[in-house]
Amino acid sequence: MDMDGEVALPEGRRILVAVDESDESVQALRWCLGTFFAARGAGDTIILLYVRPAPPAYSVLDASGYLFADEVTSAIDRYSREVADAVVEKAHKLCTLYGKEMGEDDHEMKVEVKVAVGDSRSVICQMVDKLGADPLVMGSHGYGFFKRALLGSVSDYCLRNASCPVLIVKSQHE
Amino acid sequence: MDMDGEVALPEGRRILVAVDESDESVQALRWCLGTFFAARGAGDTIILLYVRPAPPAYSVLDASGYLFADEVTSAIDRYSREVADAVVEKAHKLCTLYGKEMGEDDHEMKVEVKVAVGDSRSVICQMVDKLGADPLVMGSHGYGFFKRALLGSVSDYCLRNASCPVLIVKSQHE
Repeated sequence: MDMDGEVALPEGRRILVAVDESDESVQALRWCLGTFFAARGAGDTIILLYVRPAPPAYSVLDASGYLFADEVTSAIDRYSREVADAVVEKAHKLCTLYGKEMGEDDHEMKVEVKVAVGDSRSVICQMVDKLGADPLVMGSHGYGFFKRALLGSVSDYCLRNASCPVLIVKSQHE
Repeated sequence: MDMDGEVALPEGRRILVAVDESDESVQALRWCLGTFFAARGAGDTIILLYVRPAPPAYSVLDASGYLFADEVTSAIDRYSREVADAVVEKAHKLCTLYGKEMGEDDHEMKVEVKVAVGDSRSVICQMVDKLGADPLVMGSHGYGFFKRALLGSVSDYCLRNASCPVLIVKSQHE
């Protein structure tokens, strides 16, 4: 155990917050704002990342057997974009609100928004590397019960595979 | 999803860092110091928690069949205390070093030390409640390969059971 090394003073930390439709994701963002921006003027950047699923590449049959491939997939894709916009807009609004309460002049707060497409688990881990994020902040669940049961939770995956410290915020009501 | 609630400004956060003999625990502490104390003067408290195993309550037979219950258990207990002292002392030293580099006058840093006895997983979660900790910071492993294989990792357990956000710092060499 080596305790005697140099102590690094981080400047301009890039905090990646994975946002989704869940309440836990909102609580994670709140916690993050409260922790990293309170009394800090070091020019941290908060990056809001929303990962939306890739549009289905295969054809879709409706109940009566008709093929609506293009209409249906484009409708799903449009809905997914709308959800992404809504989530990201609300998250950004919370950051702005927080910035105002803190006094924006004293606490310079940079907020970036990324919307990516793909499997949330691998995309989040890739983004950690690509953006040089430290830490990754996320809710403990997200992306629904059935998908979680099938794939394991997104947070478990990121905890094992992300190359930076991971902060998991659980719902207070859990 | 409710984003419009009040934004809390935390004052005097109590950061619980679970320390053990592992390198990951040192990296967790370093990360924690770098993150929470850099450019912060809000009077946060860092609590270093070391949990040592309970002394064996049963008698111990040596290879030749003699009963050395008292001598052996007291030797184990003494060794465990010495390890606890060494870990905690080194962790405290790192905090002091960090405080000096930051300039102690500007960045008031309170450090508390707790050594508890029992099963690390449940003790850490109990301490979160008892001390009002937020967040809990720990390495991703700790407490050895065999015990981890048997009981699951300490960090997995705490992630599921601690009542506050949990930050897991992984070894950079993993």
